[in-house]
Amino acid sequence: MMVLVNGELADTLSVHDRALAYGDGVYRTLELIDGQPRLWPWQWARLQADCAALALPCPDETVLLAELARAASGLARAVAKVTISRGQGMRGYAIPVAAAGSRVVAVSAWSGYPPACAREGIAARWCDMRLAIQPRLAGIKHLNRLENVLARSEWQDPVLREGLMLDSEGYVVEGTMSNLFVLRGGEVLTPALDRCGVSGALRAWLLDSLPALGYLPKVVRLLPQDVLMADEVFLCNSLIGIWSLARLDERIWDDFALAQRLQARLARES
Amino acid sequence: MMVLVNGELADTLSVHDRALAYGDGVYRTLELIDGQPRLWPWQWARLQADCAALALPCPDETVLLAELARAASGLARAVAKVTISRGQGMRGYAIPVAAAGSRVVAVSAWSGYPPACAREGIAARWCDMRLAIQPRLAGIKHLNRLENVLARSEWQDPVLREGLMLDSEGYVVEGTMSNLFVLRGGEVLTPALDRCGVSGALRAWLLDSLPALGYLPKVVRLLPQDVLMADEVFLCNSLIGIWSLARLDERIWDDFALAQRLQARLARES
Repeated sequence: MMVLVNGELADTLSVHDRALAYGDGVYRTLELIDGQPRLWPWQWARLQADCAALALPCPDETVLLAELARAASGLARAVAKVTISRGQGMRGYAIPVAAAGSRVVAVSAWSGYPPACAREGIAARWCDMRLAIQPRLAGIKHLNRLENVLARSEWQDPVLREGLMLDSEGYVVEGTMSNLFVLRGGEVLTPALDRCGVSGALRAWLLDSLPALGYLPKVVRLLPQDVLMADEVFLCNSLIGIWSLARLDERIWDDFALAQRLQARLARES
Repeated sequence: MMVLVNGELADTLSVHDRALAYGDGVYRTLELIDGQPRLWPWQWARLQADCAALALPCPDETVLLAELARAASGLARAVAKVTISRGQGMRGYAIPVAAAGSRVVAVSAWSGYPPACAREGIAARWCDMRLAIQPRLAGIKHLNRLENVLARSEWQDPVLREGLMLDSEGYVVEGTMSNLFVLRGGEVLTPALDRCGVSGALRAWLLDSLPALGYLPKVVRLLPQDVLMADEVFLCNSLIGIWSLARLDERIWDDFALAQRLQARLARES
């Protein structure tokens, strides 16, 4: 793994960094092919939006792309994590006037997921952990991720690849590490992320790509029964790609047709 | 400032530490007199409870006290921050089986606050930022503090020493960095922290100490009008001690009698 901190080779951050103290930052995880990030327009748009939402210093696009390429040198396929922190601060929540930001680019060789996950779908469960409703932070891929950590800690069974999370009012929001889409009666639906949840880059790509396949996706409040009654359900993130749900507790699906069309389209996307 | 990371002199943490990645940890801030933490029974109880709530490895008490004393050597009065993180992990929310934890003890000379804050009370404001209702994380002094960061970023006026925060249902919970008590009609009330907020060590000390002054404090849901109609309002944390509210928007208080009795008692507490 190669790590660049503010462009320098390093693998540590100051203990006074506000990412550590308060989770005061955002991140993205992305796939690199020959040093080039896939789905970059969608990743970059999300990173810019998230930095703006927290008034974080967004890195220069050219600098960031150069650092990704450098950290991935020699790797045909790699995983990158980009973390943008407020930077160092002294005691107290107040944002330092001179906060310079910290930029961590960590790249490692692609380890991937079993191809069967994408081909045959996966098994998932419902999480007990609920997402709190916090419109001010909703959608942002920020570093305050204890809800996801606790949700993911609910199961150890490796057969279960994902857990679905509800908000505190009982609406379905996402998986612990993925966004969710359902196909029902010819309509594609995905949960609104205006009150909680993480707005993923691949979710944005799917919303942009579905019309070309004849679907105008709707962003809605979704109940558990909407998922259970769906014709197809699929999860997405930038590393797993698109995974169909084959099983959710007792519910079994065997129609993955739309997910497979989207996988094929995604495979052609640079 | 002296910083010990897992007992070794250091001032950095791995970029793979989960405190940085997810805010997966807890912390306490405390005052040291000649290397001895004040209010230690309350601080230690809160640290243990918070570690237990997140299944974090709680440090050994003897080890932690020795590290605090070492980091404070030469300082008659000091400020310590103790951070307990899940430790290093690889990609993904799942808690590593072998997570060893990271322990950061940072000590610096006491810088303090103007004595007038304790003597004459302070001015505060209402924050627009609301605390989300998340019972699973309520009370824990964890590292997911973006709500506090955003609340504190709402004002720059140095005259305003604190901002009061409501939860998403409109109940008063706390200050951005302090807990809150009100005296009204001879009763002492403080907000319940079962749905959000941070349970501070000095709050616990106050709840334990008020009966000796003739008050049986009640832990309740408090509305903004309950604060505005109170005879006395005071804020507390382990560094500021006890500050009366002298002004909240248009509301002025000049009775600080109970707060002053508590300050006197706190001054005698080791």
